Amino acid sequence: MTEIASGNATPAKRRGRRPAGQDTRTALLDAAREAFARSGYEGATVRDIAARAGVDAAMVNHWFGGKEGLFGQAVLKLPFSPAELVRLILDGPEDELAERIVRTFLTRWDGAGGEIFTALVRSVAGHSEATGVLRDVFVRHIFGELVSKVAPDHADLRATLCATQMVGLGISRYVLAFEPLASAEVELLVTAIAPNLQRYLTGDLGDLGDG
Amino acid sequence: MTEIASGNATPAKRRGRRPAGQDTRTALLDAAREAFARSGYEGATVRDIAARAGVDAAMVNHWFGGKEGLFGQAVLKLPFSPAELVRLILDGPEDELAERIVRTFLTRWDGAGGEIFTALVRSVAGHSEATGVLRDVFVRHIFGELVSKVAPDHADLRATLCATQMVGLGISRYVLAFEPLASAEVELLVTAIAPNLQRYLTGDLGDLGDG
Repeated sequence: MTEIASGNATPAKRRGRRPAGQDTRTALLDAAREAFARSGYEGATVRDIAARAGVDAAMVNHWFGGKEGLFGQAVLKLPFSPAELVRLILDGPEDELAERIVRTFLTRWDGAGGEIFTALVRSVAGHSEATGVLRDVFVRHIFGELVSKVAPDHADLRATLCATQMVGLGISRYVLAFEPLASAEVELLVTAIAPNLQRYLTGDLGDLGDG
Repeated sequence: MTEIASGNATPAKRRGRRPAGQDTRTALLDAAREAFARSGYEGATVRDIAARAGVDAAMVNHWFGGKEGLFGQAVLKLPFSPAELVRLILDGPEDELAERIVRTFLTRWDGAGGEIFTALVRSVAGHSEATGVLRDVFVRHIFGELVSKVAPDHADLRATLCATQMVGLGISRYVLAFEPLASAEVELLVTAIAPNLQRYLTGDLGDLGDG
């Protein structure tokens, strides 16, 4: 899970004042789960969720990068926020972009536990709203942003090609538990997979016609 | 769905004799669905299924390549049998193996309809027996056999790496419907994806330590 600095430790619970940091975040996640369950993704509003959590709506953008990020972490339990992930991954040389993506993805999901990923796949397979949000998170916010920074040609196609590799990696490791991949060390998989992902990000895709 | 020559057309239904071909296949699929639902994958036997369908147990191997193949087509509704697929894909030059895999995979699943693939993902996410069979079908029977024909080093890892790409392609196209990938022409995707898959099959995977 995302680590968040929770401000100064408070030795005893104080009345009449909501503590900053982790508690604000938890209150927002709880209010969001309730609101999305009650009103659906389209019906729920950030303003309403923030009000119920007793915090300013600006905190939603601060912690979660908006409604999609909130849904992603509250309902889909993604172990990252898209904005945080993009920032982490962009921090380094461009030709090692894919290595950082594979390493960060596996480290986060290994840490969160495979059953979280399985639950995610289950909600996506049964639930079109989850699919839409996941599409927004992965294709638009994560790969879309990464790709647009590095590869102007076929950017949309590249973003979805990256998604094929990373979604397939997650499902094969956490849901299907294909061995030896499921138990392989993170760095072995970085070595084996990153060159393929790097081709999708910045490499020659071949003659795609006018696509 | 797999096309099967159904023998001579019979203008009217004949009593006392089961027609060959398509009808035998259908009877086996019906009996299998019933048996797997009743006894589970481990409990159901090929002998029992064949007896209930009124056909010889040898037909199960003939049509489906054994119990896994029968489960794959009866319950998971895979639009191919592993044995048939391996035969099709091996028929051609080794350096175009990946192109044939991507082309055959997309053509079969496009033809079967995306909702079949979504149902497959749903049963895998909710159902450990389906996962086991899918692992056997994809990793052992399909990629395992293909890889063992062409790449002696890291064969098991290569088979699962291939699975990451193909499982991710299927989910991104049919379940998540990531655009422009979901609507892209088959040949464009063959061009974009086959070189990555070919690296997993026969290429240099980098320094993997003693793996």
